[in-house]
Amino acid sequence: MPLLVVGSVAIDNVETPSDRRDGLLGGSATHFSYAASFFTDVQLVGVVGDDWPAEHTKLLSSRGIDTSGLQVARGGKTFRWTGRYESNMNDRETLDIQLNVFGQFDPVLSDHYRRSEYVFLANGVPALQMKVLDQVPGCRLVVADTMELWIQTTHADLMKLFKRIDGLVINDSEAKMLAGTDNLVLAGHRVREMGPRFVVIKKGEHGAMFFSEHETYVMPAFPTEKVIDPTGAGDSFAGGMMGFLAQHDNFEPLALKTAMAYGILVASFNVEGFGLERMQQITRDDIEERMVAYRKMLSF
Amino acid sequence: MPLLVVGSVAIDNVETPSDRRDGLLGGSATHFSYAASFFTDVQLVGVVGDDWPAEHTKLLSSRGIDTSGLQVARGGKTFRWTGRYESNMNDRETLDIQLNVFGQFDPVLSDHYRRSEYVFLANGVPALQMKVLDQVPGCRLVVADTMELWIQTTHADLMKLFKRIDGLVINDSEAKMLAGTDNLVLAGHRVREMGPRFVVIKKGEHGAMFFSEHETYVMPAFPTEKVIDPTGAGDSFAGGMMGFLAQHDNFEPLALKTAMAYGILVASFNVEGFGLERMQQITRDDIEERMVAYRKMLSF
Repeated sequence: MPLLVVGSVAIDNVETPSDRRDGLLGGSATHFSYAASFFTDVQLVGVVGDDWPAEHTKLLSSRGIDTSGLQVARGGKTFRWTGRYESNMNDRETLDIQLNVFGQFDPVLSDHYRRSEYVFLANGVPALQMKVLDQVPGCRLVVADTMELWIQTTHADLMKLFKRIDGLVINDSEAKMLAGTDNLVLAGHRVREMGPRFVVIKKGEHGAMFFSEHETYVMPAFPTEKVIDPTGAGDSFAGGMMGFLAQHDNFEPLALKTAMAYGILVASFNVEGFGLERMQQITRDDIEERMVAYRKMLSF
Repeated sequence: MPLLVVGSVAIDNVETPSDRRDGLLGGSATHFSYAASFFTDVQLVGVVGDDWPAEHTKLLSSRGIDTSGLQVARGGKTFRWTGRYESNMNDRETLDIQLNVFGQFDPVLSDHYRRSEYVFLANGVPALQMKVLDQVPGCRLVVADTMELWIQTTHADLMKLFKRIDGLVINDSEAKMLAGTDNLVLAGHRVREMGPRFVVIKKGEHGAMFFSEHETYVMPAFPTEKVIDPTGAGDSFAGGMMGFLAQHDNFEPLALKTAMAYGILVASFNVEGFGLERMQQITRDDIEERMVAYRKMLSF
């Protein structure tokens, strides 16, 4: 099944304790798309400005990603983010953020895209995420991401969104904030009770947790000693997960768990290079090879 | 095989955001012994003072723990620790610490104990840990714990100890400090290169990591939403792990991994009550039941 993703496409500048890269292809929808493209056909909807380098689109197309929904807003500039990571590679500081054309993003889906059955609403204003949902009435699996800003500033809208989605993928600090507890297991259950059928909590280097009515589980991250740039790891995770589900057109419990594992593995490659650098070096075979090691790691 | 543990026996006062308990049976060797007693015969070597309540010894004996090595130093007081947990139940502050008789602890093992083949050196001054090692020449598996204080104040002794032990069990912050890196995977490898044949890094609510020459793996914690008091979780982990190894008289790779899992499960019970309260309610069957759920959680 094809997979539709709507969200931010950006140009990133990333600083780590030992290195720096400018002008990286970034954004939630971008990292998501690239990761998902190892599994299924991806349709990317986003907006960029005049300054968008053609080679970035070419890179996405080279992975078979359908970029016909990537709108170029003439006279505008692309969303830009500059961030710096602390030495633990987990905490980061946003040094500069310019929403630019993404600030006026108001996606209108093509007739073709409106028939999407698998949809990922990357991080964005909840009202906008709901406007996308309105356009995909036949959607069978919709999963959304969010961030602390929307939890704090648009809480009521977020609660409305939660009642309309199948799955929510958030990180640990967002889950704690939403649930008002530091216990992640409790937080996962509480957030699920706010609406989504299932909730996934991303814990970065500590893996991810899954919560549905009948299941609670934790899966560890794949241990890598080469953490170069964590930017987009969470979106890569979601891309690998949703890509696998769409590929198999199945979101039963076992498929969801396997999809979680693929998400974890794709994210483990994503962090091994700046932006999409490492992702450009791998194939589906590399992911499968890591899956063999991951399954072995979890067996005893 | 019987399992010998040498280390602290204490009386704890524990404060959490919602509750407080005074006069709890505490100490590294105590939590270790209690956890290990579900698997094998345990011989506890430690020291307490005149103020030691007889019911604490009775509780240990009721689990079959051999307390003949628990020396009572007449005229002295037992090691006392008072701590407070933050709302995340991970960070804790030591409000008061009185080493008392533990400050002069200088264990002399009985002839019988000197023939021990499985030994755990609970957290203590490295020089003292080595004095214990000198007394068990026929030991086949010796595992040690340590803490930040010894890393900072007795680094040279610690390095000597590392060259004499088979395994080291430390927590994440200790591993980072020892290795000088925030990447736990890298830290695990680096610490292993300092001497121990294998290194286990305890990550609290995020589980544990294992490092040997040929293996690196991560096992998640068992997800519990009932975290009442994390005191002794790390020692319970080590107790469950070593208890399983001694029970099966096997420390081959697969046994070590299974032992890690048992350690994780025993620790997950330990945190569900103050001190040893929850541990007193369970049987080996409860641990096995949780093992079934844990194996299921890791299968897909």
